[in-house]
Amino acid sequence: MFIMMVRTTYHVEAETKPLDVVAKEIAAEQSTGTWTNVPAEREVHEKVGARVVSAENNTVVIDFPEEIFEPTNIPQILSVVAGNLYGLGGLKALRLEDVDFDPLVKYYKGPVFGIKEVRKYLGVYDRPLVGTIIKPKVGLSPKRTAEVAEQAALGGLDLIKDDETLTDQAFCPLEERLTAVMDKLDKVKKVVGKPCLYAVNVTTGADKIVERAERAKELGANMIMVDILTAGFSAIQAINEANIDLPIHVHRTMHGALTRGPFGISMPVISKLTRMVGGTNLHIGTYSGKMEHNVCDIDRSRDILRQPWDNFKPMFPAVSGGIYPQLLKPNLDCYGIDCILQAGGGIHGHPEGTVAGAKAMFQAVEAWKENVPLEQYAKTHHELAVALKKWGPSQ
Amino acid sequence: MFIMMVRTTYHVEAETKPLDVVAKEIAAEQSTGTWTNVPAEREVHEKVGARVVSAENNTVVIDFPEEIFEPTNIPQILSVVAGNLYGLGGLKALRLEDVDFDPLVKYYKGPVFGIKEVRKYLGVYDRPLVGTIIKPKVGLSPKRTAEVAEQAALGGLDLIKDDETLTDQAFCPLEERLTAVMDKLDKVKKVVGKPCLYAVNVTTGADKIVERAERAKELGANMIMVDILTAGFSAIQAINEANIDLPIHVHRTMHGALTRGPFGISMPVISKLTRMVGGTNLHIGTYSGKMEHNVCDIDRSRDILRQPWDNFKPMFPAVSGGIYPQLLKPNLDCYGIDCILQAGGGIHGHPEGTVAGAKAMFQAVEAWKENVPLEQYAKTHHELAVALKKWGPSQ
Repeated sequence: MFIMMVRTTYHVEAETKPLDVVAKEIAAEQSTGTWTNVPAEREVHEKVGARVVSAENNTVVIDFPEEIFEPTNIPQILSVVAGNLYGLGGLKALRLEDVDFDPLVKYYKGPVFGIKEVRKYLGVYDRPLVGTIIKPKVGLSPKRTAEVAEQAALGGLDLIKDDETLTDQAFCPLEERLTAVMDKLDKVKKVVGKPCLYAVNVTTGADKIVERAERAKELGANMIMVDILTAGFSAIQAINEANIDLPIHVHRTMHGALTRGPFGISMPVISKLTRMVGGTNLHIGTYSGKMEHNVCDIDRSRDILRQPWDNFKPMFPAVSGGIYPQLLKPNLDCYGIDCILQAGGGIHGHPEGTVAGAKAMFQAVEAWKENVPLEQYAKTHHELAVALKKWGPSQ
Repeated sequence: MFIMMVRTTYHVEAETKPLDVVAKEIAAEQSTGTWTNVPAEREVHEKVGARVVSAENNTVVIDFPEEIFEPTNIPQILSVVAGNLYGLGGLKALRLEDVDFDPLVKYYKGPVFGIKEVRKYLGVYDRPLVGTIIKPKVGLSPKRTAEVAEQAALGGLDLIKDDETLTDQAFCPLEERLTAVMDKLDKVKKVVGKPCLYAVNVTTGADKIVERAERAKELGANMIMVDILTAGFSAIQAINEANIDLPIHVHRTMHGALTRGPFGISMPVISKLTRMVGGTNLHIGTYSGKMEHNVCDIDRSRDILRQPWDNFKPMFPAVSGGIYPQLLKPNLDCYGIDCILQAGGGIHGHPEGTVAGAKAMFQAVEAWKENVPLEQYAKTHHELAVALKKWGPSQ
């Protein structure tokens, strides 16, 4: 019988043991073995035992037979490829760098809304999307949130999102906030002539999120947002299976706890799972911004979201974390136009307010498209000039 | 107005910035601030802004006002205390060491089954529980799984659990496995005169886990098991809210990705959340065993599970990961009798089989209770003698 394999790649640094010994320990711990021989292992190893493919240069490649997985159960999949192994003794580093999920993709339908569908909804085809985060992150009432959103939409933005910590707190209940924001956006649409997406953060446990997403849809939401690592991949999977039929903006808050240290899971693996379960946009970092970043992982994540893969629709990378007009060029040079430039403080912190902040962002995009230095473009674009004055020269 | 505070403690190592500057950045990023001033922040800071309490000796203490939380939404709570902060630039380490959840505990009911209820069910009061994991971890059919379980129960064990990667795969469907195991355990109960718990692994997304747990209950399960970090805290919370009324064995697979590196969340914080959402047993590590361990974190986790806290019932620490009779003493010296000693390979790998392996474990427990060296006790206890011969002298 031909056995399909899920191939995993780990970065491994051992204290003293040779790499091939550690590789065997990982393969055993994550499939049919343990620290001592048990009689029945011989019965099962052929069928579901993991195989070490290679172990050299701190890179360990292990194949897991498809049968070891419950294919739609992501918690179970994680427990195989990213479970107990992190606890093994004698290691300095163990990071899951890549998983070839191809044997499992047939169980996933991927995004319902991808780049193409979102561009069509907005009527925007020839430039990156520009979005914002409501700031301050938390504390505003629904009415004040809607006023900030109104200004952002009047500035022509394509997308407005809640911050990752804003869900359904007493100071700003979700339903009231959503209704207030969508009411303003509907009015602004008539003024600016195009719609604006509002990603209302429905994050909660997977047991309750479908109800919350359905309610958001009933109340007129045109996009929802989910914090995928705190809520779990199952949360988006549940929404996708329930046919909520809204684009999903995916935030990766908490990712640094997994992606940044020597023990963990790389962002490209998280990006693959997010596309499988059906996200529309995913935060994968900035090439230049306030947050720590790993260029190689951003490159890989960007390609994972956008390149052809099975019949999954391509997703938008969301470029977010301390960006402002001066930082667009280094990001756009790497991302191209199929991304969402998302500035919070970089728009609302503009000295002339949110509308001017949005305009400055669009002006910086235009300058990049026309390959004109920002300082030169700013001579005839007031809002950009003010932004340059506040935040310093372009980078 | 008096504002209740959720106090958080972080271990922080910065590259160049002074600690108090980093502390302010964290407090801002996780509550109302961002990298640049935004006008409306002044409106909201008083109500939901985080406060730096202290920042010295690589320890940062930050208070978050209760109002910033959606109190029953653990994904949202995590996004505040363990979210974006890990991505901040210029850091060498950032680990969430502790959270004082007291302002939020009123929203949680904690374990339905604790140490007392499990001891009463088993009729075992004066010794640690002794349990096992079915080995090999994966690959056995339901029938073969039940045969291994039967042997374990005939050895007098208190608890048998599935491995963390075994859920509902085609080679061993959950319902068939559960029925086969419980059938054997019911028969063995008549022979050995006491029941044996079987923690059947119902791990899946929180959206599906309640149905799976209910089905397990219908089919006669006397305990369920959940991988809390891959499935999410909400998964156990959902089971607890649905009044499934079964004890819950909680596995922490994947914890090393969070607990082991410089960026992450400590095991004591995970232990607190597990008790809040209602686990009965939790794996918190071994003082001696095959897995990497941090003695200070085990001490703290052990106390978090067992010491008085609100009206939450005390939980059993599960002592698991490469243990065998020779390693019981260093663990029992620290854990005392209110723990579950869980050996997989250390029981099934016994040269005379599973029943003998279980007996050797009980003999080692008796030797510890009587404060007799294992080598001496083994002179009159054959199974222990065989174990000592196979795995070397006591440690």
